[in-house]
Amino acid sequence: MRKKLILGLLIFTGGFSQAQNQSKIDSILSLMTLEEKVGQMTQVTLDVIGEGDDRFSSFEPFNLDKKLLTKAVKEYHVGSFLNTANNRALTREKWYAIISEIQNTVKTETRLNIPVIYGVDEIHGATYTAGATMFPQQIGQAASRNPEMVKRGAAITAYETRASGISWNFSPVLDLGLDPRFSRMWESFGEDPYLASVLGVAMIDGYEGEDNYIGHPERVASTMKHFLGYHAVTSGKDRTPSFIPQDVLREYHLPPFKAAVEAGSHTIMVNSGIINGVPVHANYDLLTALLKEELGFEGLVVTDWADIENLHRRDRIAVSDKEAIKMAINAGVDMSMVPYEYERFFDNLVELVKEGEVKESRIDDAVRRILKVKLALNLFETPVTYYKDYPKFGSKEHEQAAYEMAAESITLLKNEKNILPLQKKVKVLVTGPNANSMRTLNGAWTYSWQGEKTPEFSEQYNTVLEAVQNKIGKENVKFVPGVKYIEEGKYYEEVKDKFDEAIAVASEIDFILLVLGENTYTEKPGDLNDLYLSDLQTELAQKLAATGKPVILVLNEGRPRIISKFEKDMVAVVQTYLPGNYGGDALTDVIFGDVNPSGKLPYNYPRFPNALIPYIHKHSEEQKKSEGVYNYEADYSPQYSFGDGLSYTTFEYSNLQLDKLTGKNGDKIKVKVNVTNTGKLTGKEVIELYTSDLYASEITPDVKRLRKFEKISLEPGEIYTVEFELNTNSFGYFSPRGEFKVEAGEFEIIIKDLKQTYVLTE
Amino acid sequence: MRKKLILGLLIFTGGFSQAQNQSKIDSILSLMTLEEKVGQMTQVTLDVIGEGDDRFSSFEPFNLDKKLLTKAVKEYHVGSFLNTANNRALTREKWYAIISEIQNTVKTETRLNIPVIYGVDEIHGATYTAGATMFPQQIGQAASRNPEMVKRGAAITAYETRASGISWNFSPVLDLGLDPRFSRMWESFGEDPYLASVLGVAMIDGYEGEDNYIGHPERVASTMKHFLGYHAVTSGKDRTPSFIPQDVLREYHLPPFKAAVEAGSHTIMVNSGIINGVPVHANYDLLTALLKEELGFEGLVVTDWADIENLHRRDRIAVSDKEAIKMAINAGVDMSMVPYEYERFFDNLVELVKEGEVKESRIDDAVRRILKVKLALNLFETPVTYYKDYPKFGSKEHEQAAYEMAAESITLLKNEKNILPLQKKVKVLVTGPNANSMRTLNGAWTYSWQGEKTPEFSEQYNTVLEAVQNKIGKENVKFVPGVKYIEEGKYYEEVKDKFDEAIAVASEIDFILLVLGENTYTEKPGDLNDLYLSDLQTELAQKLAATGKPVILVLNEGRPRIISKFEKDMVAVVQTYLPGNYGGDALTDVIFGDVNPSGKLPYNYPRFPNALIPYIHKHSEEQKKSEGVYNYEADYSPQYSFGDGLSYTTFEYSNLQLDKLTGKNGDKIKVKVNVTNTGKLTGKEVIELYTSDLYASEITPDVKRLRKFEKISLEPGEIYTVEFELNTNSFGYFSPRGEFKVEAGEFEIIIKDLKQTYVLTE
Repeated sequence: MRKKLILGLLIFTGGFSQAQNQSKIDSILSLMTLEEKVGQMTQVTLDVIGEGDDRFSSFEPFNLDKKLLTKAVKEYHVGSFLNTANNRALTREKWYAIISEIQNTVKTETRLNIPVIYGVDEIHGATYTAGATMFPQQIGQAASRNPEMVKRGAAITAYETRASGISWNFSPVLDLGLDPRFSRMWESFGEDPYLASVLGVAMIDGYEGEDNYIGHPERVASTMKHFLGYHAVTSGKDRTPSFIPQDVLREYHLPPFKAAVEAGSHTIMVNSGIINGVPVHANYDLLTALLKEELGFEGLVVTDWADIENLHRRDRIAVSDKEAIKMAINAGVDMSMVPYEYERFFDNLVELVKEGEVKESRIDDAVRRILKVKLALNLFETPVTYYKDYPKFGSKEHEQAAYEMAAESITLLKNEKNILPLQKKVKVLVTGPNANSMRTLNGAWTYSWQGEKTPEFSEQYNTVLEAVQNKIGKENVKFVPGVKYIEEGKYYEEVKDKFDEAIAVASEIDFILLVLGENTYTEKPGDLNDLYLSDLQTELAQKLAATGKPVILVLNEGRPRIISKFEKDMVAVVQTYLPGNYGGDALTDVIFGDVNPSGKLPYNYPRFPNALIPYIHKHSEEQKKSEGVYNYEADYSPQYSFGDGLSYTTFEYSNLQLDKLTGKNGDKIKVKVNVTNTGKLTGKEVIELYTSDLYASEITPDVKRLRKFEKISLEPGEIYTVEFELNTNSFGYFSPRGEFKVEAGEFEIIIKDLKQTYVLTE
Repeated sequence: MRKKLILGLLIFTGGFSQAQNQSKIDSILSLMTLEEKVGQMTQVTLDVIGEGDDRFSSFEPFNLDKKLLTKAVKEYHVGSFLNTANNRALTREKWYAIISEIQNTVKTETRLNIPVIYGVDEIHGATYTAGATMFPQQIGQAASRNPEMVKRGAAITAYETRASGISWNFSPVLDLGLDPRFSRMWESFGEDPYLASVLGVAMIDGYEGEDNYIGHPERVASTMKHFLGYHAVTSGKDRTPSFIPQDVLREYHLPPFKAAVEAGSHTIMVNSGIINGVPVHANYDLLTALLKEELGFEGLVVTDWADIENLHRRDRIAVSDKEAIKMAINAGVDMSMVPYEYERFFDNLVELVKEGEVKESRIDDAVRRILKVKLALNLFETPVTYYKDYPKFGSKEHEQAAYEMAAESITLLKNEKNILPLQKKVKVLVTGPNANSMRTLNGAWTYSWQGEKTPEFSEQYNTVLEAVQNKIGKENVKFVPGVKYIEEGKYYEEVKDKFDEAIAVASEIDFILLVLGENTYTEKPGDLNDLYLSDLQTELAQKLAATGKPVILVLNEGRPRIISKFEKDMVAVVQTYLPGNYGGDALTDVIFGDVNPSGKLPYNYPRFPNALIPYIHKHSEEQKKSEGVYNYEADYSPQYSFGDGLSYTTFEYSNLQLDKLTGKNGDKIKVKVNVTNTGKLTGKEVIELYTSDLYASEITPDVKRLRKFEKISLEPGEIYTVEFELNTNSFGYFSPRGEFKVEAGEFEIIIKDLKQTYVLTE
């Protein structure tokens, strides 16, 4: 019966027009008191309304505290909740029970019956739902260079999020992952603005549908994170100051957000950091002038965790909590992820409006944006979706998609003497702290914030060890960890675990599969002081290499930890990133040749901890020797570069052609290149087109920039002609004043080792 | 006879007024052709006019090539030369011969007889003169916290520079040494703008005299380096891009330059880097609007090495050399340190003026500034000073001053169980690659650019080893290097040298003096990829500590290399920085108690290579645990902090008093504190006063900032009341628009562990 109701609504609400929604918003708004409006702007974390000793934690198993819930929605008119309780995934049944009870309480206890909107970080699958399908994290999705696959993954996540009764997903991350030190680099699509734009839009299309009809019960509202410039911190540490000039914001950080706003994403979350001295949550120029006015964003702007309080309590640009609220709301924040002391937020904001410090028109604007999303989600008709209506939740079909993306993301960085793929009749030592861990395959935001609860939920999936055992038989696999993480400790705490035995066992096997990397982390707990892979893991690698047995290094890490102290002694290097629940299987299929690898690195992999130059950089950073006695040579030497990734077959590029070699601004240029599979296996290849502006009059130009890419599959001997259409905007740049300029001059168009010069005459 | 002439001139020219100079400039300028003017703006390096195979090197011994010299000064009217030849120090006699011949050629071969101005980097003594007195490098001078001593050192350097016939010194560095990765950190006064301002002015007063009467034959023209923001690079590498917002430029980077302009420094050199995408050499806003107009700088702006060419050849904002010259001269450059292809600079600039691309008024302005400095230096009367007139060159008196500054700069960072000072009746192992090196005690810019020629010139001075031998007798000193630098290699290349023997010898001695650090470097060759102290030195320290003998770690390094892998096993840690030719003696006097150490660290010493947060930072960088389940604690843990430095006696602070606890903007606040020497030895102490702005409305405030300091000496038991006068400007900050603001609110005044709150009411 329930199911029918939803289908009925679907047909009905599918017909809602924007104008109808607009008039509904007007009519609701006209009925609302100031307190009801401010309540809509208030978002509270689940623990606050759970039975428990205090608002910071709840009893297990979790139950809503009826009194606290009623206080929140009735007295304080709270319009949104977020997060799981006790930092632990729940079953679909439990989610349904919780959200139903909240919505029912709204229905029975409030005057206007405005449904709450429930938001969760479902960043690589339905994070906080037991049994959900877990995809590779975004950094691995970026390595796949496969927008269709990213879109399909997001659609599955949307489905499984709705199967959990949740309709608002705090994803995707559109920040640039340009700092290997940053604890959330892996939550990004890597360092390139164009790649992040294409994949960000693909992900939003997956969550919301290309038509952004999120009333559909298998879709969710997406959230663009974190506006703007979040990862570009000076110190490399989360939530610390950045210096970002206007042109840098626009040239690199803004494009993925601009593309995502144009793709119709319904909500956006603000950067918790500080740009040029000003916390972004207090920055009118960014949140209102740029986002809402210039980009024309009409959706909902939500803060990150406690970030209005942080204006006072951490960043000290507000002398009180009240002043902080005034600053943030006036800067353009529509909803405060409070998340605990919501009465303080509510009372202060009501007072500020009464005192004229925040205009009621600003409040009305915020509430309109919130109601718009609630209406778009059909929450008024279907305040909660019902898990039994989602039979494909955690299905084989979904899990196959997760496996396929993992297989396409894995990136082969080194393969000396074509040692890979291995034959299946070999004896292997599997070792390293990541060799037998579902936790590390998934990373953080998996069943819990920091990922530490993954083992409780992932027994049915294969670790690398288990997948190798399945592939070649347990009898051919030795397993000695060598090093293990202290699972209750900080992410970087580890100890030896049969270290000497790992070395000793080498004599009994043919190959060593050494699985190194990091334990799981995100945000401040993931801050890093030393980018070198840990001393213990480095020592394990060195001693295993010294045995003379070939060592295949498998990396399972959220950011590129330095391996230069032993990389030369590894016969092969395979980067898995954080590949999700099917990472072990996909890796094993690559290692043993059932999958031909096609992932491409989405960042520069540094060789040293203080040599972190990204692929997007200036000529001075790779300066050649200058004339005279003074040698000003620069040392630019990443371990691996953006775009690197080997295949078991080989590709040759030839005949790079432009349809014209000169032209004027506004022209379109057709670029063709032939790609031939010159090896013996079918393989996938990513063709990347870069441009280089030889001289720019106002800003020293980048060495090169990615402008187009396409992933293709070729049979042995097959030739394919790739065709790109370039706009002359690809030659432009932002001036120091933030103006976009396309200047006459020479530009190189680069594909692999081929180059053509195009001359723009005016 | 010569001497009398100079004295006569001194009396005469001392009476020249600015108005007289002005009218002389006008009259010279009115006689000059365009070509003669452009020649004045051209600076050429010495090798270009030396006998040799090409313009990049010269034969040894160096001789001027009469034909090339005549071409430069006669055909191209070159107005300035710089540098030594073949990157090697010369004798005073040789310098006199070279500069005399250049000036004589000008006199005989040119129409207007405008003397050339000769400039050299004499940064810690007369760098390129054999036998000159070598002081600690600036970073050590900063640790001394002794402005009088800095001034005296600069006066001696000026004297010895004039004794070399040279009148223009490219010193001091006023950049902030805020990045431990940067290859020139040691050329700065450390990370604090106030400290750099006070010591920068002291140094300029030493070079130019407090009255800036540089016609005095014992004074030189100083050069403020490098305008502006040079060390603040994103990558940590020399001459790479920086992002610096307006308020950051003004709050931190500008104050030392502003103070130095007010102190009357005659010349300034431009930052070779790129700020916010724009190379500073092309930045009109910085070079003209800020420096010349707003700060009112009336002196000469010279480029750094080849930096006009770099606008085209490296940074690519100019499509040609000619365009680069146009950009730089129009931005405000007065003189181009070409340094090789001067004909290209000359011809292009003449053409640009003829074509109207550079106005002749801009040329006239540049030439006026150049002539002004030449006149101020009395070069028209005394184009070259004569070495025999400088009997105190390299004298005992001068060298005593260098020793004293070294002794005050040495900074005791750790002294477990008061193990220091050592008795003199002990047996000591002296070990480490820096233990027997005059080269490393001096650093770069010593007898050669990278410092590699120091051994040829410094035999008469004591290395650490020699000084220890002198102090306690050779028979009580074992010396085994353990590790040595490859002296012909890159600065970071090193090998084992009797490594195992060093460990073995430990059993025979009482204490180990382990002298670690870096070989010498500056600029691009000093770029760094890994801030850890080298693996070999780390291993040596670990193995020596494992012998159980107490290890006293002596650091001899230009920047704080990471020692956290073994620091806990060292019983004492002494930082010498780059202490100059008397560093070995001064260190030994500290170790054995003949000097009570009083140096204070001028930067935060990091504990990890990716945790480089300076002492000036924001609250978010040392955030404490926040409420709730989400732990957002930051990990702020420098190895040692700015201001650290132990003494062999102890000091107690008490009774911090303000003469008023509240007031309004413009008030002066008297701050008093009592300091007592509570130990058993006479000692020097640096009293530092910090302020903390608790809330700032536009920019998130710094945790604390140094505002005043004073160095005092106290006998055991002596009490001293230090008195500071604070201006309310100490509570102000620059807004994002670059406006200085002093806001009402609460401010903490902090001396050591004492605090008082001051309330500004308006």
